[in-house]
Amino acid sequence: MISIGLIGLGAMGAGMAKNLAKAGFLAGVYNRTACKAQSLADELGVVAFDTPSALAATCDVIFMCVSRDEDVLEMVTAVAQTVKSGAVVVDMSTVSSSTAQQAAAILAEKQAQFLDAPVSGGVEGAKKGTLAMMVGGSNEALEKIRPILAAIAARILHMGPVGSGQATKAVNQIMAAGINQAVTEALAFGKAQGLPMKKVIEVVSGGAAGNWFLEHRGPTMMQNTFAPGFKLALHHKDLEICRKMAENADISIPLAEMTLLNYAQLMEQGFGDEDISALYRLKMPHKLS
Amino acid sequence: MISIGLIGLGAMGAGMAKNLAKAGFLAGVYNRTACKAQSLADELGVVAFDTPSALAATCDVIFMCVSRDEDVLEMVTAVAQTVKSGAVVVDMSTVSSSTAQQAAAILAEKQAQFLDAPVSGGVEGAKKGTLAMMVGGSNEALEKIRPILAAIAARILHMGPVGSGQATKAVNQIMAAGINQAVTEALAFGKAQGLPMKKVIEVVSGGAAGNWFLEHRGPTMMQNTFAPGFKLALHHKDLEICRKMAENADISIPLAEMTLLNYAQLMEQGFGDEDISALYRLKMPHKLS
Repeated sequence: MISIGLIGLGAMGAGMAKNLAKAGFLAGVYNRTACKAQSLADELGVVAFDTPSALAATCDVIFMCVSRDEDVLEMVTAVAQTVKSGAVVVDMSTVSSSTAQQAAAILAEKQAQFLDAPVSGGVEGAKKGTLAMMVGGSNEALEKIRPILAAIAARILHMGPVGSGQATKAVNQIMAAGINQAVTEALAFGKAQGLPMKKVIEVVSGGAAGNWFLEHRGPTMMQNTFAPGFKLALHHKDLEICRKMAENADISIPLAEMTLLNYAQLMEQGFGDEDISALYRLKMPHKLS
Repeated sequence: MISIGLIGLGAMGAGMAKNLAKAGFLAGVYNRTACKAQSLADELGVVAFDTPSALAATCDVIFMCVSRDEDVLEMVTAVAQTVKSGAVVVDMSTVSSSTAQQAAAILAEKQAQFLDAPVSGGVEGAKKGTLAMMVGGSNEALEKIRPILAAIAARILHMGPVGSGQATKAVNQIMAAGINQAVTEALAFGKAQGLPMKKVIEVVSGGAAGNWFLEHRGPTMMQNTFAPGFKLALHHKDLEICRKMAENADISIPLAEMTLLNYAQLMEQGFGDEDISALYRLKMPHKLS
């Protein structure tokens, strides 16, 4: 039987670990903060490994879900020390395409395969197993583990070679930034008109301007509640990656640039750990705030 | 039995007339271009009235679906000449809240009621009867005709007094502008990355950046096809209404302002009759266009 491990138990990783365990797939977990790993391992009846290398030594499929490019490379380097030949490492973090390519090169030296497989759908999607997953790397490796991925994600698409999962995620993050701008601008306008905003959200959701963010974050935004969800500082980090990719491709992304400025301002004011919908803080009508 | 008429047989109005006729509700239609009215009336087995006044003389519920503020006031003035006491006039055009209030005042003199009931959901929604409808005016008048509206719209919400339907529609149009910006910016970025865009649209649609516009206009945009849908010049007109309302409320709508500039540029280039997704023309990567 295939043995499966997961590295990184943040809000997203923990949700995915639970769904993998529920489907009977999970052997063990690793987390930098050990107590978090131990407590989740106890809950799920799996092993809490002391190091990424210990996890890699026994697992055939290794999932990773961390935050930053340097974390991915650090974990992949540790995994590569003990990784089995033929193992598949699936990184679900959001990082740059070039980091994905570096990770793949490190693992290729040990005859292990790498898939960049970032996800979208928020903490809700991670909990419910309804994430959308965009995969770069060998199609053969993807097909081998697709039944396992189905425990985590409702849509799994192969986008091309290593790095193209991350490039697709960048499209997603740029679009999410623009939609955040669109929804906060329009709801602030509605609030200024004195409209019943709960009904506004309901009716607009049903039309051509309907979107996931409005339905899921509109109601909390209107209560001035900004619990994550998706942390603003993380989206800021993702958009910095997107900015570099856009510069390299000689294409302008003005809404994403505007969002970077707005997020930086909010982070300075201490709102970096709030949901990205806290962008509304900068837009709410002054008369009413 | 209640007799129902409809004034204005553009892309939206014609779709709604068909659904009203299918449900057995429609008595007759009027259109400024008479041959269009005659041809649809023949198809649906209803009367083609020669004037709005002739229609109003025989109908208890009068629907209107025209384009501009001055058209609404002209039609309402004509209708008021013959309108029955107790009749309900339902205007589904997108105009300003103040035009709705003027129309209501004109009809109130003849003991007729006015509802502003703009819709969202595009030509597709009008054809399928799945529009979202935002209604301002007397709740009692709305409840009286709700069973009739159900032939046109899947969601029908009472937003408040006369004018609040239009204010809600303005929220919708501002959000639609921002989403158009978000989707075109992100897809142009993805195109510049050389990604398989059909798959990108599929996977992004399933995540937290998912939205109606991406699902319905993303695929055609990627084929450089911009058939309406919703004409760019009409959205430009709507956003000019929104701009005035925003100025009056002392609130800024930068994405809508950016969109007004972009649309004006496209209209100058002769693209005003294309779908609003033609905004992509200004964003497509130069290397590939």
